Amino acid sequence: MRISQLSTASGVPIPTIKYYLREGLLPAGEQTSATRAEYGERHLRRLRLIRALLEVGHLSIAAIREVLAAVDDEGMSMHRVLGTAHYALAPRIEPGPDDEEWRRARQEADGLVAGLGWQVDARSPARDELAQAVLTLHRFGLPATVQALRPYAEAAERLVGEHEIRTLPRGGSREEAVEALVVGTVVHGRILDVMRRMAQESASARVFGTPATDR
Amino acid sequence: MRISQLSTASGVPIPTIKYYLREGLLPAGEQTSATRAEYGERHLRRLRLIRALLEVGHLSIAAIREVLAAVDDEGMSMHRVLGTAHYALAPRIEPGPDDEEWRRARQEADGLVAGLGWQVDARSPARDELAQAVLTLHRFGLPATVQALRPYAEAAERLVGEHEIRTLPRGGSREEAVEALVVGTVVHGRILDVMRRMAQESASARVFGTPATDR
Repeated sequence: MRISQLSTASGVPIPTIKYYLREGLLPAGEQTSATRAEYGERHLRRLRLIRALLEVGHLSIAAIREVLAAVDDEGMSMHRVLGTAHYALAPRIEPGPDDEEWRRARQEADGLVAGLGWQVDARSPARDELAQAVLTLHRFGLPATVQALRPYAEAAERLVGEHEIRTLPRGGSREEAVEALVVGTVVHGRILDVMRRMAQESASARVFGTPATDR
Repeated sequence: MRISQLSTASGVPIPTIKYYLREGLLPAGEQTSATRAEYGERHLRRLRLIRALLEVGHLSIAAIREVLAAVDDEGMSMHRVLGTAHYALAPRIEPGPDDEEWRRARQEADGLVAGLGWQVDARSPARDELAQAVLTLHRFGLPATVQALRPYAEAAERLVGEHEIRTLPRGGSREEAVEALVVGTVVHGRILDVMRRMAQESASARVFGTPATDR
């Protein structure tokens, strides 16, 4: 199909498609004449994935480029592709001065992960994120113990183990499986986050007794 | 205390404190001479809150300003302060063309919320976020039914109802309660998100059989 048809089929405007081509997110079409290129199913799929990473994952163009490179690298294991997606999704943590407070929080975070028996790489940025959260809870005198955080760990474990693993397609191509893995990570993460904020809003309306229209 | 002492006590560098003062995030100290101002407990608390919103919530300076204005507005109900924090935390959704696909996704999202029996404001940005996620699931042929999303809703409801409501301080000042509400929303949201990514990494290491060191 031509770029105009690719635009119609994907819902992505032509200038945006051209931008993705320039940025190397989308592979070039097959040049059929000096001014004409043909695009196929593969481009349509790729646009769908870019949109998901952009619109739901809110990843930067640079982060999307990294994730797509991992998806395309057939020598990369599924585990490493997921790690790349996680790395792209993790907000950058600036640990600040490498002081005693930070080191203690990081140790606590590592202790929490060990206590849960989870296999999380020692270099995973998630460990620093957890340390940052633990540090902040400490500063506010809020509990950051295994007991206090276990409900979150258990909820996460249950959703991943009982629900998300099932949505992975079996028996399809590597590309399909990798795409589903990446999309599932991004979209279900967003859904859990938004559901929690909605549940909070609803509980708050109930507890503080304010009618829903008072906003 | 002087600005240097405020810096030591808070762990925030002096230039950063001055930046917050200029940006109106931190109220001015009491001017005791032409070149000297005194800061107190209130400034220390405010710095702590700014850091939490910045380092854990990853809010912009503009968003932090809005949240702080809500915290300081004593005429604002707890419910509305929480709503302000939620609004600041929600990523901006650009619904794109107001087309049939978007309208259907938004209707489905509204149907999900209604089905859960939650009190969520019709103008809450969370509804658009959910619609965006539903739209993306559709595009990938992944299920976005009540059944598929109920586990996320139930996990969220359980965490908020059984855990987060308890961490709200009772009987303290409004300021303390509001701060705890805002911090709890931000920090526990981050914890849930990072726990889920860690649980995924751990499950992935198990399912795909890749040793944890292969990263």
